[in-house]
Amino acid sequence: MSVYSDNISLKAKGFADMHDITPKLREIVATSKLKEGILTVILPGSTGGITTIEYEPGVLKDLEELIEKLIPSGRTYHHDSTWGDGNGFSHLRSALIGASFSVPFQGGKLVLGAWQQVTYIDFDNRPRSRLLHVQLVGE
Amino acid sequence: MSVYSDNISLKAKGFADMHDITPKLREIVATSKLKEGILTVILPGSTGGITTIEYEPGVLKDLEELIEKLIPSGRTYHHDSTWGDGNGFSHLRSALIGASFSVPFQGGKLVLGAWQQVTYIDFDNRPRSRLLHVQLVGE
Amino acid sequence: MSVYSDNISLKAKGFADMHDITPKLREIVATSKLKEGILTVILPGSTGGITTIEYEPGVLKDLEELIEKLIPSGRTYHHDSTWGDGNGFSHLRSALIGASFSVPFQGGKLVLGAWQQVTYIDFDNRPRSRLLHVQLVGE
Repeated sequence: MSVYSDNISLKAKGFADMHDITPKLREIVATSKLKEGILTVILPGSTGGITTIEYEPGVLKDLEELIEKLIPSGRTYHHDSTWGDGNGFSHLRSALIGASFSVPFQGGKLVLGAWQQVTYIDFDNRPRSRLLHVQLVGE
Repeated sequence: MSVYSDNISLKAKGFADMHDITPKLREIVATSKLKEGILTVILPGSTGGITTIEYEPGVLKDLEELIEKLIPSGRTYHHDSTWGDGNGFSHLRSALIGASFSVPFQGGKLVLGAWQQVTYIDFDNRPRSRLLHVQLVGE
Repeated sequence: MSVYSDNISLKAKGFADMHDITPKLREIVATSKLKEGILTVILPGSTGGITTIEYEPGVLKDLEELIEKLIPSGRTYHHDSTWGDGNGFSHLRSALIGASFSVPFQGGKLVLGAWQQVTYIDFDNRPRSRLLHVQLVGE
């Protein structure tokens, strides 16, 4: 049994900018040499979220519209009155979708469906360089 | 320390069809002989979700109505224009609820409340046979 | 590799009462002597949720308002007709936000952003003493 860690570096545009991180996660599992266990990926930050979705343009646009409907970007939140950085909506979206996600791996492969991609969504209101942290525990 | 894997097979009807998978998870923990650790269960697919809820008919109906309110099934999504399979709403529901869930276990028992059940919700728009994947890491 | 468990005890007021549990989680990681691995924290109960958010009064108020908008407290749910305890909304909020959350730790530190706090939200409709369960798997 051991633990293996790595990072995924990406340039995010914000405003529900989506990134399929599955290929990178697969590489990390392969490099780790671990065969069976659990992988957890997290954004160490408060304005992004991670979930799974079929990574095709139609449903990604649907997800963006859904998030905009549930937590509109075009209004003032209490958070904005506190800090004046205008990204109250970004924080709420992150809290709702969740900043971490866990996936088992077996036989050296992530246990995911063929049309299911682990997707990082950047909710901030400006471009940012992001470093996601990936941790594997297994054997 | 070791890793133990198993599957849960079920027949799902779709449209927010709910299944209490706690009894199966308990069996898997017992069979694994592991006493302390973390269990992660995932649907390898993009149209289901897993969370915990008190598994009683009233609140399950509430949850179905809530999901229908947040992400209505009776409209056309961009995803549907792409694929024509009419299940755009199913994908969005899965992304919002989350396709994986993690529960600690201790003394060979899942750490859950008495009225808290791990519940698989199938969001697809047709009946499907499903195979959930369960992974335990512990000792 | 080993597993380490502990609890976090807190007094919750209900109705989206929020608690920053990050300092307690940090203490538990330090006491465990584990350096690398994954931590999972869960409420063993069906009326609370755990996520991350910047723990400042403005955005906490925003989160409370968002949850009230998505799942209003001032109406009767089917669950309430079943049990008469009037906390149908509490169960739905827990199912949506999720009762467990996982965070990697590395070099003996939780992998979190500087303005990202692991936050327990009590959704019940009355004050309760709560015992969160924390499980670490690592080395």
